[in-house]
Amino acid sequence: MENPVLVEVTRGNRVESRHRGMVVAVDGDGKVVFALGDIDAAVFPRSACKAMQALPLVESGAADAYGFGAKELALACASHNGEPEHVALAARMLAAAGRDVSALECGAHWSSDQAVLIDQARTLERPTALHNNCSGKHAGFVCAACHTGTDPKGYVGYDHPIQAEIRGAMESLTGAALAHDNCGTDGCSIPTYAVPLKALAHGFARMATGTGLAPGRARASKRLIDACMAEPFFVAGSRRSCTKLMQIAPGRIFAKIGAEGVFCAALPDKGIAIALKCADGASRAADAMVAATLARFFDDTPEIKASLMAHANHAMRNWNGIHVGDVRVTGALAA
Amino acid sequence: MENPVLVEVTRGNRVESRHRGMVVAVDGDGKVVFALGDIDAAVFPRSACKAMQALPLVESGAADAYGFGAKELALACASHNGEPEHVALAARMLAAAGRDVSALECGAHWSSDQAVLIDQARTLERPTALHNNCSGKHAGFVCAACHTGTDPKGYVGYDHPIQAEIRGAMESLTGAALAHDNCGTDGCSIPTYAVPLKALAHGFARMATGTGLAPGRARASKRLIDACMAEPFFVAGSRRSCTKLMQIAPGRIFAKIGAEGVFCAALPDKGIAIALKCADGASRAADAMVAATLARFFDDTPEIKASLMAHANHAMRNWNGIHVGDVRVTGALAA
Repeated sequence: MENPVLVEVTRGNRVESRHRGMVVAVDGDGKVVFALGDIDAAVFPRSACKAMQALPLVESGAADAYGFGAKELALACASHNGEPEHVALAARMLAAAGRDVSALECGAHWSSDQAVLIDQARTLERPTALHNNCSGKHAGFVCAACHTGTDPKGYVGYDHPIQAEIRGAMESLTGAALAHDNCGTDGCSIPTYAVPLKALAHGFARMATGTGLAPGRARASKRLIDACMAEPFFVAGSRRSCTKLMQIAPGRIFAKIGAEGVFCAALPDKGIAIALKCADGASRAADAMVAATLARFFDDTPEIKASLMAHANHAMRNWNGIHVGDVRVTGALAA
Repeated sequence: MENPVLVEVTRGNRVESRHRGMVVAVDGDGKVVFALGDIDAAVFPRSACKAMQALPLVESGAADAYGFGAKELALACASHNGEPEHVALAARMLAAAGRDVSALECGAHWSSDQAVLIDQARTLERPTALHNNCSGKHAGFVCAACHTGTDPKGYVGYDHPIQAEIRGAMESLTGAALAHDNCGTDGCSIPTYAVPLKALAHGFARMATGTGLAPGRARASKRLIDACMAEPFFVAGSRRSCTKLMQIAPGRIFAKIGAEGVFCAALPDKGIAIALKCADGASRAADAMVAATLARFFDDTPEIKASLMAHANHAMRNWNGIHVGDVRVTGALAA
């Protein structure tokens, strides 16, 4: 199935580049309320499903035992900029479990945000695993393992109890089978599983509504999503799309990007979740797509709808600040 | 017309993202020798046509008057990393015309190469226009203007004599009409004109072969292309695709990337030029596309062909160095 062009990038009076993709929005029962493109295609959610991967941290009791609040839970669901607040909080999470940076198996990298990278270059010889955008998620894995008496060593492996538990939770939420056949390795070395886009959306709709979930999972899901919405800086950081989207409608939008053009989002008070992918993997397109899709559900709040559409459709300026073109969603997505 | 999928990005045993695009190779007469996708679509060449934009520098006699050799001419055709050698040479070019950084109208930005950016952050308070990837091209504009007694001020403007001369040269080379209707503003503030992809390739084939060109233009074209092939570091820099591609077959490949997924290339000893665009604007795909297209023309030199295909199809590794997937061209492009 051919996916439609959903985002155009213009220059002068011409379209310069075009992004295709697929979008689906479902309710807690999995009923499709909006769809474009091949929503049955299997997609690696990458970092967009970190809130699912954080369930063992809460469900095991580790989060309570270590006194974690909304900031720590948000960081466990985060792809953060490696700003000082993110790095310090990841270290404190590990310290709560009696561990330190040496327990992290995510690898190290400089920030992907230019301003943060410049600060890092001026203050660090090199980044550590605490600066990795996934350090909060990995600290959560270590904490969940330690609290349950499991050796965290090797926690990135497919067969480690933490990954097995995550796999079970994600199978239950999405209804999709997860196994070696649809498993890839993520940037931070943990397994990532390709699942149908519609199933991914349904998983987030279940988390956002609790529909069909055991009470403990429903509570843990709500706690994680509420934490992200309460502390959007800790889910991403300065200048970042997830943070900005959640700040547009505090407490009403959950949004999480994944690599290669994936975005998942939920609207808990509307009982809806969204999953989408830009087919070519472009973040700029996924960002516009999720904002425009979210906007469809805010007819009741014109100022939120307008802010979301302004996020979706925006001017591009060059090094001299001259308006050279625009990123804009196509008619299929214009709310 | 639907453009075909030309590059796939895999993870595990799945295709994660797909890039569509169009590719054309022509000879000096404009005869199409290889084509995929909509090669009549109008494309902004962006920085891929900098060698065309450097013609006035040579044709005016400015390059000779100021004693410019291959390095300076390569830098005039460059999108460079802003490494110290690039910055110093751009400053020397301006000094030859009695000017300095204040004459540049390209704006300033940090390097797009992470390692260079880290060095810049540690040694500079902020970048200047000399660090702009286009500073060599702009220094060339200033030199061409100064040598011909034209005030360089406003040289980025559509109506400035330098831009008018470039417009005429590009119309003559490509056979396409360039005017306000197909004009956009580039990242560095100069005009960029959308032209049919096939016409863009024909322009470079004329430059590489001299076919149909007046002797002065043919000489200037050869001199610029030879300069880029002789000094590939000054066309881009460390870790950069243009530099690597030209180093694979010294003196036999000219290659220049442009923003939004454009690549132009020429094979002077084969009398062929190539123009291509990844429809979604992705550089990673344009890079694979140009290497695989170049490889088609090296059946006579298996080691060059193999090096080009190794550039096109390559492994992706994560922060821990684990092989997580590949960038690869599809069957349509596999040479």
